[in-house]
Amino acid sequence: MVASEFVSELRQRYGIEFHDLSLLDEAFTHSSYVNEHKELGLKDNERLEFLGDAVLELTVSDYLYRKFPDKPEGDLTRIRAAAVQTAAFSAFSKEAHFDRYIKLGKGEEKAGARKRLTLLEDLFEAFNGALYLDQGRKANIKFAEQIIFPKIDAGEFSANQDHKTALQETLQQNGDVAIVYHLLDEKGPAHERQFHVDVEVEGRVLGTGFGKNKKAAEQAAAKAALARLKK
Amino acid sequence: MVASEFVSELRQRYGIEFHDLSLLDEAFTHSSYVNEHKELGLKDNERLEFLGDAVLELTVSDYLYRKFPDKPEGDLTRIRAAAVQTAAFSAFSKEAHFDRYIKLGKGEEKAGARKRLTLLEDLFEAFNGALYLDQGRKANIKFAEQIIFPKIDAGEFSANQDHKTALQETLQQNGDVAIVYHLLDEKGPAHERQFHVDVEVEGRVLGTGFGKNKKAAEQAAAKAALARLKK
Repeated sequence: MVASEFVSELRQRYGIEFHDLSLLDEAFTHSSYVNEHKELGLKDNERLEFLGDAVLELTVSDYLYRKFPDKPEGDLTRIRAAAVQTAAFSAFSKEAHFDRYIKLGKGEEKAGARKRLTLLEDLFEAFNGALYLDQGRKANIKFAEQIIFPKIDAGEFSANQDHKTALQETLQQNGDVAIVYHLLDEKGPAHERQFHVDVEVEGRVLGTGFGKNKKAAEQAAAKAALARLKK
Repeated sequence: MVASEFVSELRQRYGIEFHDLSLLDEAFTHSSYVNEHKELGLKDNERLEFLGDAVLELTVSDYLYRKFPDKPEGDLTRIRAAAVQTAAFSAFSKEAHFDRYIKLGKGEEKAGARKRLTLLEDLFEAFNGALYLDQGRKANIKFAEQIIFPKIDAGEFSANQDHKTALQETLQQNGDVAIVYHLLDEKGPAHERQFHVDVEVEGRVLGTGFGKNKKAAEQAAAKAALARLKK
């Protein structure tokens, strides 16, 4: 069963108390653990992840729809995409210390799965699926009020969102300008790859940035360029 | 405002009565209509579509999760994908006669937008978004019980999927049975090739089918065999 330490942590930090602890247990059981302990006939967290994914999608969509009554659909879709992506959900998982309590098989543990962003994303979804089954959607909203909505309010997903477009719009106010992104470097193992990119405008490097993929590094470089232009 | 004919149709066919008719009106207003009538300051249905998309995703996910307690996540994801895709949602829209009541701009009307599948899909989502805001998610579930769930129950989205597996499972309930697919014919130019296949079970042809490739033809033959077995 899930650690009693975690049960109290959930109660103290988030006011969450599961009626059916086996759901919580299922949410924190990785398929690699199930496979290593076939004799126990455990369930992994994948079905809960399937459900939680949809619960979170609606929780975030509903919040955005009401919070931004004047934003067009395109803006809402962009913010939603940023708020429900791997980077966001895995960060929420870590913030809630979910990474400490997931049960992994030994092989996956050795391979560093506990820090793998997609695993943490799945875990966040599975937890929300379990919470939904245990207590209904209001409990997910209450949890989101503590862990997701404050970041939406802080503009973490709107601003972040698209520095490249913002840079382009800023630079091209007075006509076309050539904006080029160069990949400078790419290193690290496959699951922890790091990309380094610069952005050059009319032959001058305006900023550089790092990221887990080329796109993220380009966004970081555009952000740096925007910061420099605003000085 | 939305046609009173449609308001009665919704009541009679689905037992749905909107409290706030302006939401229903918004759901049935295409952006092309708004653009042609700028002076009216109307709202198009795109924000409702954003919301309804997430409402439907959860409605279908929740139903699948509970209906198939033994299916692995991969199967649930496949059925969900089939049930929420353009082809499905646009068919639901037509079944509910939504296509008759959408307000379109003249240009879009001429271009045949009323029959465009993506428009009908968006409309189905927008209607569900409006229903959710007007009456809460229970109303969406009640509507889905009339228009979506019966098709899931009939295997429209799962079966589609894999008739060969379904046939095998049906036939092998009482032990191994030899199932053989034969290519009968193959004709037409490369880009429009047509394959004809039959499926033979213990020496008896149970069905035949056509398809763009061998696999599709085998699926069609398996589907025909299943239909015959169910009679």
